[in-house]
Amino acid sequence: MDDLRARDGVAMDYMATFGAAIERLHDEGRYRVFIDILRNKGNYPNARCFGQRALSRPVTVWCSNDYLAMGQHPAVIAAMEEALHDVGAGSGGTRNIGGNTHYHVALEAELADLHGKESALLFTSGYVSNEATLATLGKLLPGCIIFSDELNHASMIAGIRNAGCERRIFRHNDMAHLEELLAAADPAAPKLIAFESVYSMEGDVAPIAAICDLADRFGALTYLDEVHAVGMYGERGGGISERDGVADRLTIIEGTLAKAIGVMGGYIAADRLITDVIRSYAPGFIFTTSLSPVLAAGALASVRHLKGSSIERECQQQAAADLKAKFAAADLPVMSSTTHIVPLLIGDAITAKAVSDALLQDYGLYVQPINFPTVPRGTERLRFTPGPTHDAAMIDTLVAAVSEVLGRAPLRLAA
Amino acid sequence: MDDLRARDGVAMDYMATFGAAIERLHDEGRYRVFIDILRNKGNYPNARCFGQRALSRPVTVWCSNDYLAMGQHPAVIAAMEEALHDVGAGSGGTRNIGGNTHYHVALEAELADLHGKESALLFTSGYVSNEATLATLGKLLPGCIIFSDELNHASMIAGIRNAGCERRIFRHNDMAHLEELLAAADPAAPKLIAFESVYSMEGDVAPIAAICDLADRFGALTYLDEVHAVGMYGERGGGISERDGVADRLTIIEGTLAKAIGVMGGYIAADRLITDVIRSYAPGFIFTTSLSPVLAAGALASVRHLKGSSIERECQQQAAADLKAKFAAADLPVMSSTTHIVPLLIGDAITAKAVSDALLQDYGLYVQPINFPTVPRGTERLRFTPGPTHDAAMIDTLVAAVSEVLGRAPLRLAA
Ligand SMILES: Cc1ncc(COP(=O)(O)O)c(C=O)c1O
Ligand SMILES: Cc1ncc(COP(=O)(O)O)c(C=O)c1O
Repeated sequence: MDDLRARDGVAMDYMATFGAAIERLHDEGRYRVFIDILRNKGNYPNARCFGQRALSRPVTVWCSNDYLAMGQHPAVIAAMEEALHDVGAGSGGTRNIGGNTHYHVALEAELADLHGKESALLFTSGYVSNEATLATLGKLLPGCIIFSDELNHASMIAGIRNAGCERRIFRHNDMAHLEELLAAADPAAPKLIAFESVYSMEGDVAPIAAICDLADRFGALTYLDEVHAVGMYGERGGGISERDGVADRLTIIEGTLAKAIGVMGGYIAADRLITDVIRSYAPGFIFTTSLSPVLAAGALASVRHLKGSSIERECQQQAAADLKAKFAAADLPVMSSTTHIVPLLIGDAITAKAVSDALLQDYGLYVQPINFPTVPRGTERLRFTPGPTHDAAMIDTLVAAVSEVLGRAPLRLAA
Repeated sequence: MDDLRARDGVAMDYMATFGAAIERLHDEGRYRVFIDILRNKGNYPNARCFGQRALSRPVTVWCSNDYLAMGQHPAVIAAMEEALHDVGAGSGGTRNIGGNTHYHVALEAELADLHGKESALLFTSGYVSNEATLATLGKLLPGCIIFSDELNHASMIAGIRNAGCERRIFRHNDMAHLEELLAAADPAAPKLIAFESVYSMEGDVAPIAAICDLADRFGALTYLDEVHAVGMYGERGGGISERDGVADRLTIIEGTLAKAIGVMGGYIAADRLITDVIRSYAPGFIFTTSLSPVLAAGALASVRHLKGSSIERECQQQAAADLKAKFAAADLPVMSSTTHIVPLLIGDAITAKAVSDALLQDYGLYVQPINFPTVPRGTERLRFTPGPTHDAAMIDTLVAAVSEVLGRAPLRLAA
């Protein structure tokens, strides 16, 4: 590569361009170094962390999105083991060409039922479900205008951008602003309102019913990302839309199988005609190998379990409430959150990384700093996700450690 | 939904628009019905097929992309089982936030070694690796022109489109045309040539060395999709680029873990700086839960096995050669292919589906019809992928059945 320029004198210096892009991240203190961890099955949140020389040391994980520890639930492990022995590792094809199994069909039926919809459609991830569905809807509805909450996830933004249609960004959860934008748009134009239920970096919740009211008034479709709520809210884990009794008012509910469900994959649930049109037209659904049947089997067991069991949800809400209360009592800058997510404001990328490094090195506590572009600059934070298996003693240890580290002088922190 | 229009008199009739989109597919005979199958582990290509009433009947699968049956290999199953018990079902986070495990790190090292590159980067699928990498490269190189083979896969097309930069389509494998387009472009502009090694619907192979010669002359980067060749060509399964001894000339090699490797996931292999810049900037990499460690463990075992074992590759090539010879001897319209892929030309969507249906219903032989947009209209085909476990007797049975069905009068076929 390096001699490209030397050889012909015309090509740009690609490596210099890429190098400069990496330099920018270092300068801003937001170059990402992945922590190499292995969770100890049956013993979560305990894990092992591997250093440079691959020596393993014990850590406690405080930032997993396997919110309910379902990734280690015996029913999930057993279902995956059975599928592994029954059909093998991968599906061997796209859904249309050899990659459709009984597990996929059963899981879609289960997810449709979870959200009270006619049908559901699986994708390889939540990211792909958002990108593929929003991009395809926009293309199928000529002249469509997409109204998007300003804090929507990167995968929704990608889908909306790739839809190639007009978009209007409304201020986060601001109904007056959304109404204003809807009222200003051509009444005859197709419209879609895209938003999330639980915003995962803030921990606040969308006013779903109010958004549906506006959608009804202005004849808009609604698209709700329940990624951080599925499995965790509502009687059966159907998300905030189930808790609020508004699932039937939403056109499309989207979710992931990789967070509270504990496995991997994504989906949408909607009227049959809508899943059918996405199934038939979305390249991100059509042209990719389907989810491994092993994952589908695990997700199926997990969704079924969480439909009938509330203890995981209750214990997790309890742990989150405890941690928030103890952070506040210790005068730590815990951000307001009405959900299970516990964000602690730090305010710049370099300090956030230094605090995270100190917690890992000095205390064996693993929490990742959250930097731009995941959150706006100046709002860099640590984001804690206590689960049903984080007990009171663990919470006390964490609060004491965070207090000590945040109390250090900036210089000692960076060292 | 249906009453939207009635209620406010302004909204468009969304359901009618979606319904019309589905109608178009029915009219063209290319509405897709997924066949519900479960492979019998340890006994591939034998499988069970589920009908409307969920009764199971035995079928032989002829269209799987688990080309070497590695999805059922004991070493792969054992590795997945171990990971399942060691760490659990899902990774619980993005690569940056809690979702990086020892398995991911080890698999990336193994893939880098497979292609003789400094490093590799995992994605949740081959589709995502293509989309995310091409879109991000285009954005990182202002003014970049992407030169793309006209038969490139939908995932590459999505990435190139989302890159938002100029693109030039060259005629399939046509070096004179590619040279002409390169010569006509601004010499100072950054350039990228994107192509595949094995074109999976035709079974032909790109002239990789000739493309690299042009890339050198015009100072272009090269991006090679080896999705249908990884594991299957070259001494260690490094793909056509290994077989042809040109891997070191390519800037980026992309592959999947879902076809010959038998599991699920995708990757790129390249210089460390290049994987680092994609790792740091690609939304499709950053904002999604990482591959399940169970899948990473299975893929790792599969790649390692195929590095040291050629018997799977040899048996598969033998089966493909046999099937081609027997189709030709039976005067069936087998398309020219220099690889393991055996396409049989049918020429229209309705007949292709009728033949496929008849093979499944009357003979228990499962091969999916390939229609637009996967292949151009008028070239609809059946695509057979014999593997190491399809024996001579199975091949004879298939050839006889296809001959009989293709010999039926069109009317009897449709019935
Ligand atoms: C709001 C939101 N939507 C979608 C996703 C993507 O889901 P997945 O991890 O299954 O790709 C995420 C996070 O990863 C998310 O936070
Ligand atoms: C040429 C090519 N590239 C990429 C892909 C996508 O790979 P994956 O199935 O892992 O998403 C496919 C098929 O699925 C393909 O045929």
